[in-house]
Amino acid sequence: MSLRPMIVVMIVMAGAGQADPLPSWNDTDAKARITEFVARVTDVDGDSYVSPAERIAVFDNDGTLWVEQPVYTQLLFAVNRVAELAREDPSILTSDALKAAAAGDIKGVFAQGRDGLFEVISASHSGISVDEFTEVVQGWMQTARHPDTGRAFDDMTYQPMLELLRYLRDEGFTTYIVSGGSIHFMRAFADAAYNIPPQQVIGTILNSSYQVIDGDPVVMKDPGLFFNDDKEGKPIAIDTRIGRRPIFAAGNSDGDFQMLEWTTAGEGARFGMIVHHTDAEREYAYDRDSSIGGLERGLDEAGDRGWLLVDMAEDWKTIWSSGE
Amino acid sequence: MSLRPMIVVMIVMAGAGQADPLPSWNDTDAKARITEFVARVTDVDGDSYVSPAERIAVFDNDGTLWVEQPVYTQLLFAVNRVAELAREDPSILTSDALKAAAAGDIKGVFAQGRDGLFEVISASHSGISVDEFTEVVQGWMQTARHPDTGRAFDDMTYQPMLELLRYLRDEGFTTYIVSGGSIHFMRAFADAAYNIPPQQVIGTILNSSYQVIDGDPVVMKDPGLFFNDDKEGKPIAIDTRIGRRPIFAAGNSDGDFQMLEWTTAGEGARFGMIVHHTDAEREYAYDRDSSIGGLERGLDEAGDRGWLLVDMAEDWKTIWSSGE
Ligand SMILES: [Ca+2]
Ligand SMILES: [Ca+2]
Repeated sequence: MSLRPMIVVMIVMAGAGQADPLPSWNDTDAKARITEFVARVTDVDGDSYVSPAERIAVFDNDGTLWVEQPVYTQLLFAVNRVAELAREDPSILTSDALKAAAAGDIKGVFAQGRDGLFEVISASHSGISVDEFTEVVQGWMQTARHPDTGRAFDDMTYQPMLELLRYLRDEGFTTYIVSGGSIHFMRAFADAAYNIPPQQVIGTILNSSYQVIDGDPVVMKDPGLFFNDDKEGKPIAIDTRIGRRPIFAAGNSDGDFQMLEWTTAGEGARFGMIVHHTDAEREYAYDRDSSIGGLERGLDEAGDRGWLLVDMAEDWKTIWSSGE
Repeated sequence: MSLRPMIVVMIVMAGAGQADPLPSWNDTDAKARITEFVARVTDVDGDSYVSPAERIAVFDNDGTLWVEQPVYTQLLFAVNRVAELAREDPSILTSDALKAAAAGDIKGVFAQGRDGLFEVISASHSGISVDEFTEVVQGWMQTARHPDTGRAFDDMTYQPMLELLRYLRDEGFTTYIVSGGSIHFMRAFADAAYNIPPQQVIGTILNSSYQVIDGDPVVMKDPGLFFNDDKEGKPIAIDTRIGRRPIFAAGNSDGDFQMLEWTTAGEGARFGMIVHHTDAEREYAYDRDSSIGGLERGLDEAGDRGWLLVDMAEDWKTIWSSGE
């Protein structure tokens, strides 16, 4: 027996330690702050060590993990589905918002305000069992294309964020989605797109009911809102669902403010991060005045609160998971 | 180098395989059905194999994992806490139910019906942050004693069920509590008592709000019911929280009927189990006529539905986790 096998093992391990977990991030301050934080909370001998059970990381979805411009993907789905349902039964178009949706007129839907918008979401997400709805969303995702790029939506997830999710999981974190998007819509693709299983998807919840139909018990999706997972709703949902205050939170709009505020106010090492959309060339540039993903308070207070403002144009080498 | 090390390893493994995972269960049909089911769904080469991600097991709490007679533990806590709060501020006793609670008169609380009962729960579970509430419950559990036995409540969990939880986890299952008990009350002891972490505790949810108090963001517990995790509520909560239909469900009352119905109606191998309280000597004997843990439909239909009726007196060698 010689020492050679042991030496080989040590070289392999050193190589693994040096591999860049975030290759699509430029070598800017943003990347350094993330990796420093992870090193601190995983250092068993350090003052900031956090046990794996407490390594909870929460991520907003739209505009944080995938594209949300020029219009939320879920709203595109909703509009398409209302049109499809109306072809079978035109009598469902009982309002101006629903008529606009059936005509593919998204501006017309927005013109009806929050209530009109919710009417379209509600009509397109109900009257169907959860299992059937999941299949409908998955079928839609296979053929739907982004209005500006013509690409599939699962090609328009952010590669640097996929790397961040994987990196955190490799370092013992549990990663959750905490989004204003509706829970059954997101679950239909979250496992495939992000490696986030259904029990780690937290979102807006529409009504549902338990029914036994011809002897077959199902959970049915019903009209109406049960819980709005936005703003103050995010910490409340995290408490209800996870029961632990996260140590890492990432968002992109003021809808994430309370989630970041609550996360970073906890004791010990905490990390708050805002994806700032600054890249009009490769993606979109928007913040204060955007009706989608509006970011004002977060932009004003991130510095004082020690939250990382990720500058997409500066900090991200690649944007899209498709590589394009 | 000799073959000896390899032989030692094989003997150790064979020994582990023969160890009884359920030593507090008698060698009756109940135990055999459980271990056969687990063997089937974990046999990679069998037709009934279920991947670890899909091995979801859900357990009711009161009367399934711990004692619920002569009165729900949570109600004892609530009555104690109302009395404590009333000593500080007697003006909170605005109803007959609350006055009865403050006097320790549980029958008087019941006399005020469901509304009175909920009033006591609501008053004793609100006006406090989640973190503080958790400490209050944990403090109470240390000193509170069961009215009949004088023992601590965490000594009155069921040893056979603790073994079943551990056995399932060892076989790759994820174990959840799905109970009518309220979520923050159960979380205060579920990790210590059952090794079930907060994100796997599903229960009734009372209102809460996000508040920033003197610069300190907290989730506050508020009066009122948000979600009742009983009967039809159980499958709905499982869908919302876990997003997968369980393959194993255990309960003890008709409040668990829909959870078992939905679980066992799924495709492939499924297991439904009802803990039937038949042991007046070592525990309590009750079913159809009990106002706590009433079991009628489940008792009538368990046979036809293939659900296991666990006969506590016959099937359990030991009852209590304390060994007494
Ligand atoms: Ca967003
Ligand atoms: Ca029960």
